Amino acid sequence: MKILVINAGSSSLKYQCIDMQTESCLAKGLCDRIGIDDGLFKQNANGKNIELKTDIPDHATAIKLVLKYLTDKEYGVISDVSEINAVGHRVVNGGEVFPESTLLDKKKIDKIEELTDFAPLHNPPAVTGMRACISVMGENVPQVAVFDTSFHQTMPDVASLYALPEKYHTQYGIRRFGAHGTSHKYVANECAKYLGRDIKDLKIITCHLGNGSSITAVDGGKSIDTSMGFTPLAGVMMGTRCGDIDPAIVLYIMEKEGLDTDEMNTLLNKKSGALGVSGFSSDFRDIEEAAKNGNKKATLVLDMLSYQVAKYIGSYAVAMGGLDAIVFTAGLGENNTTVRKYICDRLGYTGAVLDDEKNNVKGELCEISTAESRVKLIVIPTNEELAIAKDVQAIVSKI
Amino acid sequence: MKILVINAGSSSLKYQCIDMQTESCLAKGLCDRIGIDDGLFKQNANGKNIELKTDIPDHATAIKLVLKYLTDKEYGVISDVSEINAVGHRVVNGGEVFPESTLLDKKKIDKIEELTDFAPLHNPPAVTGMRACISVMGENVPQVAVFDTSFHQTMPDVASLYALPEKYHTQYGIRRFGAHGTSHKYVANECAKYLGRDIKDLKIITCHLGNGSSITAVDGGKSIDTSMGFTPLAGVMMGTRCGDIDPAIVLYIMEKEGLDTDEMNTLLNKKSGALGVSGFSSDFRDIEEAAKNGNKKATLVLDMLSYQVAKYIGSYAVAMGGLDAIVFTAGLGENNTTVRKYICDRLGYTGAVLDDEKNNVKGELCEISTAESRVKLIVIPTNEELAIAKDVQAIVSKI
Repeated sequence: MKILVINAGSSSLKYQCIDMQTESCLAKGLCDRIGIDDGLFKQNANGKNIELKTDIPDHATAIKLVLKYLTDKEYGVISDVSEINAVGHRVVNGGEVFPESTLLDKKKIDKIEELTDFAPLHNPPAVTGMRACISVMGENVPQVAVFDTSFHQTMPDVASLYALPEKYHTQYGIRRFGAHGTSHKYVANECAKYLGRDIKDLKIITCHLGNGSSITAVDGGKSIDTSMGFTPLAGVMMGTRCGDIDPAIVLYIMEKEGLDTDEMNTLLNKKSGALGVSGFSSDFRDIEEAAKNGNKKATLVLDMLSYQVAKYIGSYAVAMGGLDAIVFTAGLGENNTTVRKYICDRLGYTGAVLDDEKNNVKGELCEISTAESRVKLIVIPTNEELAIAKDVQAIVSKI
Repeated sequence: MKILVINAGSSSLKYQCIDMQTESCLAKGLCDRIGIDDGLFKQNANGKNIELKTDIPDHATAIKLVLKYLTDKEYGVISDVSEINAVGHRVVNGGEVFPESTLLDKKKIDKIEELTDFAPLHNPPAVTGMRACISVMGENVPQVAVFDTSFHQTMPDVASLYALPEKYHTQYGIRRFGAHGTSHKYVANECAKYLGRDIKDLKIITCHLGNGSSITAVDGGKSIDTSMGFTPLAGVMMGTRCGDIDPAIVLYIMEKEGLDTDEMNTLLNKKSGALGVSGFSSDFRDIEEAAKNGNKKATLVLDMLSYQVAKYIGSYAVAMGGLDAIVFTAGLGENNTTVRKYICDRLGYTGAVLDDEKNNVKGELCEISTAESRVKLIVIPTNEELAIAKDVQAIVSKI
């Protein structure tokens, strides 16, 4: 079975074509600047790269371009579009309507569109991508939606509800949704596999640390709490997001500076986090480098982030009543050895002990705790596309 | 030495007259509805209660009333005002300007007034109270300000700073201040005394749980982190306050309901917390009773609060790298056996074990953990007035 995985943004569309037999990526690529001038198409398949400057007026055109180059004689990996058995679409927020991945029909696509309020930047292009796929590929190819929020739908009320008047939950749907669910689920399962144990018997904390970061408590394979909230602004500080702050600060700054809600949203989402504290970059590679060169603000960023992550780990260990393993994944978690060291050095209470030498690894599965460590520390590269494809396969095989 | 402790609100003034030799409260009372109709004065001293309906147009009148009845032949406890050696004033927020209690002069009082922005409801009446005391008692009686925020000034940057652009800290003074500092400091010291150990060797988490609640990590006698933030809105859910929420929710609700910052402040501070979730009461005695009678929303409040407190305890145990004792204090912490049980039952990971029988105690110092418990669980009644008086004594004795 070959599955096309689509991750559509407002002006971009990333894709991978995955062979489920080998669980390998046959081709991956990107349509960029959709609906803007200077459109760009990139694909990497079979070690061959292609990069084209071509106008991409809409998502349907993007899908056609993808299919054209997947079946291209020189650059392609399949001989006919019919070899694609199903398509998986990444959706950021499925609200409480979609607790799990689902086979799409017109009604369900409309429903996802109705959830736009919960993910205003992400759900609309995902819906556009689904409709484009159906219009280009026809109605017979199964289209499946896989939601970033699904994995967190197992959170109990104590973790998902806010102490606000009930109507804000029942009428407006305000609750903790979390994010990166596909990634947390994938690496938690990979962790169990690596340890050779049944995930049902494990208490794992997964740290998805990238430009956006979230920490999840995975108890017996289920998400029981996660650091992101109603939106991806909450939790630990990120590249440009502030993470958890006293909610009264939002109102205080708005009053002091006469900001409206949009301007305040921009301040908290785009100008805060590592960028706000360091004053020079949202990129943790820059921060790491600057800290090594003695930049105090960069060191402060690393100190703050690691302190916040460590506190989440402590709170989730208590929430689960135990802790077997901590997983680091995503851009930062997989590659930034400094951030991992800063975090792990704060975990003495949990009995986790980092092996500094083993920690010297980037982007590959590796146990980085010492033999004596009471908690396993493991770097596991995430693979959201493969995780999406696996969900698609499971659903399609039931049709 | 006899010290008068004043806690002035906008329309009320609470006081205690404390004998430092015996550390006992000679008299305590309240002037209520200051500047409003139907003023009320109450005092309890030597087992004698007096309650008067009398107009109290301003704080100076209130102070005169206090001094009149402290020296009253029938109801009083001193024969002359000159027996009062010093006055201690509780101040909610001393910003970064006042890291510790301070002997007041006109300049310092002005400075406290300038910090009004940080405690708009509390600092102005405190300043009024100070000026009233000086005008009534003269300039020769030492007046000392004791700040709720001082104890938390030892927090390191990682705990006190938010991941916002630096100017919000440097220009606007936005940082974590915390609150209930006098209470946290007092019960932490009492805990060390009870355990017969030097506080420098102890890692204590103090849970001040009342209408307002905050949790503090006290490492070696110093506050290294606390759950309240820039304002007392942050942290665990409270009687009417939401505690920590995704800051994006603030903006979302404002947009959805067209609320301005004042209305939003009211929603988060006055209509949320236990009141918002239960829909019927902000008083945890009502919540406890309703939960016992099977009210599901009341049980949800207890579940949510205890979950949140337990998570803070986990995060602070990691932050301190250890945990010797957990102290429960204030209205809820001292008296609500159900809330304590809900919390402690979630602390298995820390090795804390509640003794259900010992937990059956209200308002008195009591160790409530089992003999095997790896963490001491202790109920300690707070005494903010005595703690204030001790600070005053320490400062006055250096004059």
